[in-house]
Amino acid sequence: MSEKFHFDTNKYIEIYRDGLLNDVVPFWLKHSIDREKGGFLFCLNRDGSVIAEDKPIWIHGRFVWLLSTLYSNVEQKAEWIETAKHGLDFLRKYAFDTDGRMFFTVTRDGKPLRKRRYIFSETFMIMALAAYSKATGDKQAAAEALDLFKKVVMYTNTPGFLPPKVNPETRPAQGLGVNMILINVGQELRQVTDDPFVNEWIDKSIENIEKYFLKEEFKAVLEMVGPNGEFYDTLEGRQLNPGHGIEAGWFILHEGKVRNNEHYKQLGLKIIDYMWQWGWDKEYGGIIYFRDARNLPVTEYWSDMKFWWPQNEAIIATLLAYDVTKDEKYALMHQQIHDWAYQYFPDKEFGEWYGYLHRDGRIMTPVKGNFWKGPFHLPRMLYYCWQLLK
Amino acid sequence: MSEKFHFDTNKYIEIYRDGLLNDVVPFWLKHSIDREKGGFLFCLNRDGSVIAEDKPIWIHGRFVWLLSTLYSNVEQKAEWIETAKHGLDFLRKYAFDTDGRMFFTVTRDGKPLRKRRYIFSETFMIMALAAYSKATGDKQAAAEALDLFKKVVMYTNTPGFLPPKVNPETRPAQGLGVNMILINVGQELRQVTDDPFVNEWIDKSIENIEKYFLKEEFKAVLEMVGPNGEFYDTLEGRQLNPGHGIEAGWFILHEGKVRNNEHYKQLGLKIIDYMWQWGWDKEYGGIIYFRDARNLPVTEYWSDMKFWWPQNEAIIATLLAYDVTKDEKYALMHQQIHDWAYQYFPDKEFGEWYGYLHRDGRIMTPVKGNFWKGPFHLPRMLYYCWQLLK
Repeated sequence: MSEKFHFDTNKYIEIYRDGLLNDVVPFWLKHSIDREKGGFLFCLNRDGSVIAEDKPIWIHGRFVWLLSTLYSNVEQKAEWIETAKHGLDFLRKYAFDTDGRMFFTVTRDGKPLRKRRYIFSETFMIMALAAYSKATGDKQAAAEALDLFKKVVMYTNTPGFLPPKVNPETRPAQGLGVNMILINVGQELRQVTDDPFVNEWIDKSIENIEKYFLKEEFKAVLEMVGPNGEFYDTLEGRQLNPGHGIEAGWFILHEGKVRNNEHYKQLGLKIIDYMWQWGWDKEYGGIIYFRDARNLPVTEYWSDMKFWWPQNEAIIATLLAYDVTKDEKYALMHQQIHDWAYQYFPDKEFGEWYGYLHRDGRIMTPVKGNFWKGPFHLPRMLYYCWQLLK
Repeated sequence: MSEKFHFDTNKYIEIYRDGLLNDVVPFWLKHSIDREKGGFLFCLNRDGSVIAEDKPIWIHGRFVWLLSTLYSNVEQKAEWIETAKHGLDFLRKYAFDTDGRMFFTVTRDGKPLRKRRYIFSETFMIMALAAYSKATGDKQAAAEALDLFKKVVMYTNTPGFLPPKVNPETRPAQGLGVNMILINVGQELRQVTDDPFVNEWIDKSIENIEKYFLKEEFKAVLEMVGPNGEFYDTLEGRQLNPGHGIEAGWFILHEGKVRNNEHYKQLGLKIIDYMWQWGWDKEYGGIIYFRDARNLPVTEYWSDMKFWWPQNEAIIATLLAYDVTKDEKYALMHQQIHDWAYQYFPDKEFGEWYGYLHRDGRIMTPVKGNFWKGPFHLPRMLYYCWQLLK
């Protein structure tokens, strides 16, 4: 394999950089800014036309994070930081409830629609504030970010503070998602604060994942376990989300790389390896949405679909694994997922990527954005991979 | 068309009767009864083996309703009424919270897992109690059913009693589902009570659907509107569920037939016609899950799938429409949906139907039961159509 192998760095740099700067960021800048009411309109049809005006708060945080990060690390383009501020203004004005928690969706003019039990509006607000602070030197934003991070840690560690989905007396549970997001948010927040609380929670979250969610008997990270890592042999307890696991893997691998921590590196690589095995669709290619840890049939309706974001996370994870290990295995995995994703997801006519494909790559819905898809996983992939290869 | 047309009543009677008595009811009796802990295990793999032990309460109510109804109207088989009692015992013991509301799921041994904002556990408990009372003469069950019906009417008509999904100050909303289910539950409850409250709420629910949900400008019934029928031009406001609408249509048509009410008949037929137009998939056949009232792309992930129950409801609706009108148009629609459904859904090896197919009829997951699919839509279709044709 080795003698034939050639990793074409320049090819990938070009694809990721040009995709980011000439396709994806311009698509959202052109179509999503709500100049009349503030914030962004993210529910977009294939051509960028608006199909609904309700506003998802967490996608606002994600776009502010993206634009601020590009401003700091790529180029000090006025349009980027002005648009980040445009989003942050809307968030500060309309995204918080009187109890300090954040809404999930608001109307076009900022009236509250839904507040959920999840803390993802908060976590992406922290990332937005941290990145904006780094880009502009706004110390107040950094302080707000740290304060909100401490609140999220309190919310998620105070039993009963967030209403649980399932009765905690019958089936106490913890989710992978909260641990993952604290790692990623901590990594962003650390750029504007040296409060040791941040690294403490990154470390604690990684420890939780290793101790409670990683299961050698399944060679997988689970999505939901008991407080001491108990495996629940239920539909939810067995449900694997390979794209999510791969994302957790690269967050941990990234932490290992940044802090030169060999244990984190090995843990991240193991998680990526395990979840790639579960996720890669040997029949059609691409990363599948759900699997069952005991290989029983899944029942969630979109289980065998190909969403955009698991492909984005797998492209980052395999490239980062190659970067850290120089093991050609990862370069080949990267090529494999890159080629599959680029065959089916890009919209060659209107730009950006489709989000929701059937298992075999056919388009299920052509929308470019909704309450879940916006300018985040794809542009983060393009940015992260480009920077890694540069 | 007419001279060639022949409706083969005997063929359909045989398919529906034999399907009910020799396939579907035996499948569930064989696989779902939990003799150790009580109640039923409904999360079943293709072959009837149990894939998860958590128990959905509403499916318990549905199975008790089915078995009691068959006992009353088909044959006084001891196994049917004993199994109905087995289910009802579990429901009475474990399904109610201390506040009188019902759980959505409990563990195998009856410990509460989830309680939801919906009242569907309650409505199917009413149907179970009413049918069981009719089958056995148990007056107490009839009284419990009527009492619970009054509670459900109170729950759903007291603003703020059930926590709303979306902030009602920003976007007050009402759903088609509650109105539909009150019609159907009322129709069952009426068999064991002559309290005029029941027909009042059937009439009021039909009136609500006609006044608020039926929209001539879309030739559709909407799923969610404002308190005075306001159309919300949002993803949720435009989301059409043709199978659900067709089900509402036949509930109303049935009411028109039973009470010889011409207006209800015409209303039911109109709704069936409208929603068939939205639902029938001209490319692949079958009733599709979601459409958008403005023909914009849908974003719910399973929008283009073929679930078992919309096909069941369409088979009932078209046959009932033919029965009421003698218009061959409906006989042909019935044949069309019958043929499509019977081509793809039955599991010829292990019996019963698959529940979740891709748009083109390929199987997405082979499970026979979960928290949503159980012994209800399919056996109700087989029973209702058989009785209609007899």
